[in-house]
Amino acid sequence: MDLPVDADRLRDDIEANAAFGRVEYGDPEKRGRTNRTGSEANRAARDRLAERLEEAGLDVAVDEVGNVLGTWVPDSADPTAAPVVSGSHLDSVPEGGIFDGPLGTYAALEAVRAMREAGVEPTRPVGVVSFTEEEGGTYGNGLLGSSVATGVTGADEALAYENDAGETLGDALDRIGYRGDDAIDPATWDAFYELHVEQDTVLEEAGADAGVVTTITGITHCEATIEGEANHAGATAMGDRTDALAAASEFVLDVEAAANAVVDESSASAVGTVGSLSVSPNATNVVPGRVDAGVDVRDVETESIETIVAAARESLARLERERGVETAFERPFDVAPTPMSDRLRDAAHAAADAADRVAIDLHSGAAHDAMRVARVTDASLLFAPSRDGISHSPREWTAWEDCAAATEVLAGALARVATAE
Amino acid sequence: MDLPVDADRLRDDIEANAAFGRVEYGDPEKRGRTNRTGSEANRAARDRLAERLEEAGLDVAVDEVGNVLGTWVPDSADPTAAPVVSGSHLDSVPEGGIFDGPLGTYAALEAVRAMREAGVEPTRPVGVVSFTEEEGGTYGNGLLGSSVATGVTGADEALAYENDAGETLGDALDRIGYRGDDAIDPATWDAFYELHVEQDTVLEEAGADAGVVTTITGITHCEATIEGEANHAGATAMGDRTDALAAASEFVLDVEAAANAVVDESSASAVGTVGSLSVSPNATNVVPGRVDAGVDVRDVETESIETIVAAARESLARLERERGVETAFERPFDVAPTPMSDRLRDAAHAAADAADRVAIDLHSGAAHDAMRVARVTDASLLFAPSRDGISHSPREWTAWEDCAAATEVLAGALARVATAE
Repeated sequence: MDLPVDADRLRDDIEANAAFGRVEYGDPEKRGRTNRTGSEANRAARDRLAERLEEAGLDVAVDEVGNVLGTWVPDSADPTAAPVVSGSHLDSVPEGGIFDGPLGTYAALEAVRAMREAGVEPTRPVGVVSFTEEEGGTYGNGLLGSSVATGVTGADEALAYENDAGETLGDALDRIGYRGDDAIDPATWDAFYELHVEQDTVLEEAGADAGVVTTITGITHCEATIEGEANHAGATAMGDRTDALAAASEFVLDVEAAANAVVDESSASAVGTVGSLSVSPNATNVVPGRVDAGVDVRDVETESIETIVAAARESLARLERERGVETAFERPFDVAPTPMSDRLRDAAHAAADAADRVAIDLHSGAAHDAMRVARVTDASLLFAPSRDGISHSPREWTAWEDCAAATEVLAGALARVATAE
Repeated sequence: MDLPVDADRLRDDIEANAAFGRVEYGDPEKRGRTNRTGSEANRAARDRLAERLEEAGLDVAVDEVGNVLGTWVPDSADPTAAPVVSGSHLDSVPEGGIFDGPLGTYAALEAVRAMREAGVEPTRPVGVVSFTEEEGGTYGNGLLGSSVATGVTGADEALAYENDAGETLGDALDRIGYRGDDAIDPATWDAFYELHVEQDTVLEEAGADAGVVTTITGITHCEATIEGEANHAGATAMGDRTDALAAASEFVLDVEAAANAVVDESSASAVGTVGSLSVSPNATNVVPGRVDAGVDVRDVETESIETIVAAARESLARLERERGVETAFERPFDVAPTPMSDRLRDAAHAAADAADRVAIDLHSGAAHDAMRVARVTDASLLFAPSRDGISHSPREWTAWEDCAAATEVLAGALARVATAE
């Protein structure tokens, strides 16, 4: 069963969506948009999606945190059967790319349209979903809509989150007309597919059309604080210093070395990153008194994550002994590795084979809404190639033909699962 | 010749000056003030100094960048002889201490009052000076008034500097009434003494009353830029990264190691500090793409400074080879070590001996206006003890009896030099 998709219609949808919050650079290599939850651009993107869902014959529901679900109940389906759903998100990071989120949302809609036009007769309803605030940064740390829908985060808690301007999510959704009262519960779904841009170069290097994710890596975020003593950089002898930045520099290198050791010894997919570092008082002529460091650790194996986190803790203990700093370590965010559904992966590979598309297995180092949905039902994450792996940047790009090819795999997989007995 | 000073009068002056821009903490251990050039607090501090100078019989002059000079021409003096001048500054860093600057300014005035009351008969005029914007940060990088007065910086250039609010120094001085038209030229002075708080613990540890600076260390500021590649911390394998922060961490440790090596091998006074580090994009889940680091290198020996700077450059070259980062290195600020005048140091030691005060030789790792004045005439820098060496902080403290003791040394030294044939 090969299911042709309309590449131009898909492109038109993504291009139209890219106009909301568009950032102009005067550089043909850059296509950026800023679509933050609750903004006018966000309202417009949601309005357009809802219109397009309705045009395609789907019933639109909005839940209390603004997740949008369109449902097609074909004549061939048992309307009470658990639906098969696909989708992603419409929000973006500041000056993000135009595919991260919208590709998976509009590919899901295109897949439904392709099924209808090809006369596919699903035995179950088919849904298209757009989750609220996947990126985080405006309200909370990411995956907000899918976290609430799957019970990881309470709706009341999420609605009380405030943006930088002090507006709550609840008020922002009220203001743009997307604080709904419908129930959207992934636990009632039979299956969930999310298509997303890869944000790395595995597909590009393999020349593959689509990626079928085996596991979404576990993610731990740690916050390390190193306190030394701020002092005059001229008047304080080298031997009299407790330099928080020199200590933090050892910490950064210890985390990097621990991750490299795990890669060499047990799991090539392990990563450990000190991504943020804030120095106080941060003046050229003052010995640094305090450093706050943000650490990101991920792997498909829980053991790798724990090894790297333990090395980070040991590094801080050593720095206390050897450099006299005081340290603190917190681990505010911790998600275990999430395997994707074998049933849905098999359907994706079968769809790729039928369409003569090359699909390969890989893991995802990035978190996606599929990670949350996998807690409550079978979930699958598919990737389209990303040029040079660039993401969260106006230089993010996926060729239009690559968008269509990956959407063809998604449509075939959805059709297989939706028509299965 | 022992010259008693009035400790209470000196304290009253410093306490009164501390009220301008006072910051309240509700903590008796903290006495802070924010006295930025051009602020109302700055105007009030200047007004009070001018009044006190006039009360003490000094003629007040103000130059185009707001430097204030009071001159006493005793009947005993040749009014055309080169004057002996002492002073410091009244501005502060944000939430700075109450002694840094004001002690040296009001100690100079107290010394003149003590000379007059003791019937000292100088052969030369005696001056009390307060230089504008010693701290930097509001207008330029520091030593502004003494830099203009000694020709290091052009007055037009300095007057065009803008503060964070976009007001030029010239406009700010006009506004507070301190853009004068008198000439203040240290090149016409016979000698200059500056008394300042030590900002380190050498005097405290030695139990000394005063420090006589042998050399103000040379100071170099360098700016290193390290560019890697920003990328998703989850989706980018360890082997595919060019992590600017990991590279910068090696750089920080290389600078520290180079300074420690110089301390061990040749010059104990050498220091090298990476005081500032800015990471971009500085998000926990993004591999750092760029780091800007500010480096401060100082010593009494030029050779030590050059050794540490060369090690910093070598570190960057190594990181380009080994980590694939791109680097840049600039050296926007460079001042050679400044020896203080032997004649004036001898007079200070003689004054301490006569007053039964313990004075010891030391170097200054911090820059002071005396460093600029030493370019054009004999200059001397004296230190009073600093509790725990804390400076640029509301915890900065010098006991009132220590203020008086150091002022007694200053007064005796000034009297000796002003009465010399």
